[in-house]
Amino acid sequence: MTRPHITFLTDFGNDTAPATCRGVIWSICPEARINDLTHTSRQFAIRDAAVLLWSTLPYQPIGVHLVVVDPGVGTHRRPVALRVGRGDLFVGPDNGVLRPAADRLGGIEEARLLENRALFRDDVSDTFHGRDIFAPVAAHLAAGVPLEEVGPTVDIAGLVGLEMPAATVDGDELSTSVLFVDQFGNCRVAGSSADLARLRGSLQTGDRFEVRIGEHFEEVPWASTFGAVKAGELLLYDDADYAGLAIGCNQGSAAERLGLVNDTPLRIRPA
Amino acid sequence: MTRPHITFLTDFGNDTAPATCRGVIWSICPEARINDLTHTSRQFAIRDAAVLLWSTLPYQPIGVHLVVVDPGVGTHRRPVALRVGRGDLFVGPDNGVLRPAADRLGGIEEARLLENRALFRDDVSDTFHGRDIFAPVAAHLAAGVPLEEVGPTVDIAGLVGLEMPAATVDGDELSTSVLFVDQFGNCRVAGSSADLARLRGSLQTGDRFEVRIGEHFEEVPWASTFGAVKAGELLLYDDADYAGLAIGCNQGSAAERLGLVNDTPLRIRPA
Amino acid sequence: MTRPHITFLTDFGNDTAPATCRGVIWSICPEARINDLTHTSRQFAIRDAAVLLWSTLPYQPIGVHLVVVDPGVGTHRRPVALRVGRGDLFVGPDNGVLRPAADRLGGIEEARLLENRALFRDDVSDTFHGRDIFAPVAAHLAAGVPLEEVGPTVDIAGLVGLEMPAATVDGDELSTSVLFVDQFGNCRVAGSSADLARLRGSLQTGDRFEVRIGEHFEEVPWASTFGAVKAGELLLYDDADYAGLAIGCNQGSAAERLGLVNDTPLRIRPA
Repeated sequence: MTRPHITFLTDFGNDTAPATCRGVIWSICPEARINDLTHTSRQFAIRDAAVLLWSTLPYQPIGVHLVVVDPGVGTHRRPVALRVGRGDLFVGPDNGVLRPAADRLGGIEEARLLENRALFRDDVSDTFHGRDIFAPVAAHLAAGVPLEEVGPTVDIAGLVGLEMPAATVDGDELSTSVLFVDQFGNCRVAGSSADLARLRGSLQTGDRFEVRIGEHFEEVPWASTFGAVKAGELLLYDDADYAGLAIGCNQGSAAERLGLVNDTPLRIRPA
Repeated sequence: MTRPHITFLTDFGNDTAPATCRGVIWSICPEARINDLTHTSRQFAIRDAAVLLWSTLPYQPIGVHLVVVDPGVGTHRRPVALRVGRGDLFVGPDNGVLRPAADRLGGIEEARLLENRALFRDDVSDTFHGRDIFAPVAAHLAAGVPLEEVGPTVDIAGLVGLEMPAATVDGDELSTSVLFVDQFGNCRVAGSSADLARLRGSLQTGDRFEVRIGEHFEEVPWASTFGAVKAGELLLYDDADYAGLAIGCNQGSAAERLGLVNDTPLRIRPA
Repeated sequence: MTRPHITFLTDFGNDTAPATCRGVIWSICPEARINDLTHTSRQFAIRDAAVLLWSTLPYQPIGVHLVVVDPGVGTHRRPVALRVGRGDLFVGPDNGVLRPAADRLGGIEEARLLENRALFRDDVSDTFHGRDIFAPVAAHLAAGVPLEEVGPTVDIAGLVGLEMPAATVDGDELSTSVLFVDQFGNCRVAGSSADLARLRGSLQTGDRFEVRIGEHFEEVPWASTFGAVKAGELLLYDDADYAGLAIGCNQGSAAERLGLVNDTPLRIRPA
């Protein structure tokens, strides 16, 4: 039998908090194989974590996905476990962070509130639900405890959603905004290269676009790969990590160069 | 049988040194499950590492705990292995870093000097005892080598201690100091929320205290969770990671805001 | 039977890209034990990654070594797999990054182009060959797929090389240059302490050398360990991580102090 696979994503950073949670998991489910997705997701940033989770889960074995990016710890947000179409289980706060990934893995088929304190640690702190609630429940699920034991079902329609920026085509222009800035300053924007192709009728490396950010604009080529432009030059490209349109800078930071942060609006049209 | 559990804490940082040690461990004990506690403990800071270890070990399965924060590598500090009350083994330098955690896990019951070179790597370097002495000994212990084979016993009373700041209640005031600053700038201080409760007779979210740092003072509420104060506001709280009183700043750094570093003295009294 | 050992080194940084690749690996080879060597090798820096790999692999169990530091992704550099004398397999781009480590593990005995798309992911992106080509091929090899199935042999002599700085003794002077700067600012330089010993006839802690960097010079002692010099002082030493001569600063950064970067030339002679 395959070892249970647990993925683990937080904004806990580089101190011992992730290791503490892994200790809790292995105390309950010694056979678990844990894949730390990242623990330096931007602090308190639900959408950043949602994008990262959405990006990586299609490449993970079916398993239990534990997410603790939880600015509302200790307040009234609900702790939940979800079952999705592909067969995976998700464990985390009901704050929207799980939604895009759950939708990408086939949609939520069952949602339950974490209420069975027998699956928590004996002492539940006010500030570290990752250790005391989420990690132990994830470990019990990985060890084979049935989902229905975690607590009562909750209405799927009543789960907290997450608004994601969308792109629209207005005439010959793509109106979009920044969805996520990676650690190197590459900016995933709403939409896809297919949108750019539609604007032009076709799309190939070297095709030039005008990118407008407020009053500022730049002419930027589309390219299939960073190596197609010189070091220090901007490019529009298909980001394979984040599955969609992005603006990058070969060996540099597009975010710094253009002053882009989450939700900065951009308009893109053929040059 | 459960796989042997090895925890591993260093100040080696993000280059390949931790991976080199894991390679040494797995060469000796292929079945070991390694939990990297952190490798970015502040460089050369014995007390920081001691606090992190003390914080996380109660949540770890019983195992072998390998710690290499060793400003004295190549000098006369002694390499040791300890057995504690809970049944765990510790391997590391005798510089105090292991003491608080060992005490928390039931106290030291046996201490031995690492002297059996058959358990070291063949070549022992002057500057990388983590790889050449500590990791291989930890791996041999995890693989079942009895503790007595590592070397002769040493007097437990003669092991290097570690002075930890203490808090005292003076009339209506708690006199304390900073024990540890985490990576987000939250400051664990000596003492506990129970001390604050004693000052007031009771303690609940919203109760206000005057915090004095030298000539500077701030009024700060006690709260059970960060979400109880606005973004950017200070709070006194029970830190669940570090098991005691702390001063934080919701979505900010209390250390930066108040100029706190290890051992900064603070006086706290009801406002 | 021992679990297959995969080491994994990239410049992907701290987002989810390494975890995505581990997910791909475990989907193909669930039993793999993965040792993440580092994912913060300096971006696009082939030689830095080559030095790190060369440094750590002798301490790793025999296995499959996956390296993705690949500034040429999407261009014409070739993806390859190598078999070396010790029995390990290497998987990565043919850009020189694998060469020094392969030579250290007994030399390349067989080299093959990655051409068998049955061992790739179904969709191969232009910008994430780590996920789509290198990780799945490494996983198949770890799972027991024979090396000859990855693709046709390539001429070993035709593989891309990597020029490494060398040290030369000119009379009473060692002429060398910086090979690698670690994250703490310690600088590995070409050559070895044996070269210094030859300059003097012998070598022991406290022996002083004149280190010239352009017009600037410093008198620096050789020492077997950092603890032999005061905090803030420079030393020449045998770097055990990087197996050769280095210049460091006890509890400080020699690189910052002396303005050293890769390839800075230095001349060292007895003072």
